[in-house]
Amino acid sequence: MSEIRRKEFSMEESEEEIAAFLNEASYGILAQTGEDGLPKLKPINYVYHRGFIYMHGAHAGEKMKLLRGNGRAAFHVSKEYALLPSYWSDPEFACPATTYFKSVNMEGVLEEVRDLEEKAEALEAFMRKLQPEGGYVPISTDYAPYVPKLKGVAVIRFTPERTVAKFKFGQNLQPEQREDIRAKLLERGGPLDAETAALMAAYCPFHRTEPT
Amino acid sequence: MSEIRRKEFSMEESEEEIAAFLNEASYGILAQTGEDGLPKLKPINYVYHRGFIYMHGAHAGEKMKLLRGNGRAAFHVSKEYALLPSYWSDPEFACPATTYFKSVNMEGVLEEVRDLEEKAEALEAFMRKLQPEGGYVPISTDYAPYVPKLKGVAVIRFTPERTVAKFKFGQNLQPEQREDIRAKLLERGGPLDAETAALMAAYCPFHRTEPT
Repeated sequence: MSEIRRKEFSMEESEEEIAAFLNEASYGILAQTGEDGLPKLKPINYVYHRGFIYMHGAHAGEKMKLLRGNGRAAFHVSKEYALLPSYWSDPEFACPATTYFKSVNMEGVLEEVRDLEEKAEALEAFMRKLQPEGGYVPISTDYAPYVPKLKGVAVIRFTPERTVAKFKFGQNLQPEQREDIRAKLLERGGPLDAETAALMAAYCPFHRTEPT
Repeated sequence: MSEIRRKEFSMEESEEEIAAFLNEASYGILAQTGEDGLPKLKPINYVYHRGFIYMHGAHAGEKMKLLRGNGRAAFHVSKEYALLPSYWSDPEFACPATTYFKSVNMEGVLEEVRDLEEKAEALEAFMRKLQPEGGYVPISTDYAPYVPKLKGVAVIRFTPERTVAKFKFGQNLQPEQREDIRAKLLERGGPLDAETAALMAAYCPFHRTEPT
């Protein structure tokens, strides 16, 4: 983002890192501008497949109505990893309290998929992501009972044209501060704290092949 | 939402249930319409206080720039509780795979708070929510060292004018299906599965004082 002013956000998230995050998160926020000019937000499960975001829904749904009006949309995926209390940095002021997170914002075009083969492939990729253990007949037009179901479901494809990622894991910290926060995360031991400590090391600017 | 077509969404979430969820979640998505007409989404920590959503940021930030252009905005908070595999309902088709979640969408007005007392109160409520264990000097204009910091931080207040909540926990299921899914959640025992099973019981239409 051109408007990023501080170094705490790495702008060097690679395509691979962004793709890995999109493959890991189970849902995102689809946002379209309504007729009243306000953003309309919808949480929705998706799969990131062949560079597209695929979602599905009912033909009669609100997002389909908006899509027919204006195919431009945004798609957002974020995850909060850790709340860092102020007293880890300062015994007096509340100001240093902060959050480490990953956030991916995409802007692009939303279209309805009408081709049954593409619908089947997208929905099968969707299932492999969200139900990797299987337990269903794979989705394909070769399995005739799926054909009417494929016709009945609306599949939408979002083509990202501009992607901005922020993975905030203390990239602005000095090395000794970074090690101190990492140690405190490991000591606290919350559900995501060890993973957050590992991400701090991974996103440390000095670990990168190219300095940010 | 007037466009809700199926009974699986309860439209009866009470103000208390919505407030409890807003108090529990740590961040939401602030969405504003950009000059290009596209929604601009930003994950942001917030506090729900006296009926307002309060956030803070830098005076020079992008959301402040948009705010000066157009004070209308949306705020979204959601949480995914459980992915329900298709084979819990059907041994053959993938179609019944679904997700239980809570989602709150608000539309309203965004304004910058300039009054130092309101800023201090909002930021102190924010800290009490996100750092309930304390460990800092309470934020107040009575503590002189906070005054320049309060002047330096931008506090924004979102006034919700229209709130739509969807808490989807199988409200459309028949009683025997509901008990079957609840038993499977408890058997699976994922991090949120017991809580999800409890919410299914809580949001069961038959448990409500007024049928939906």
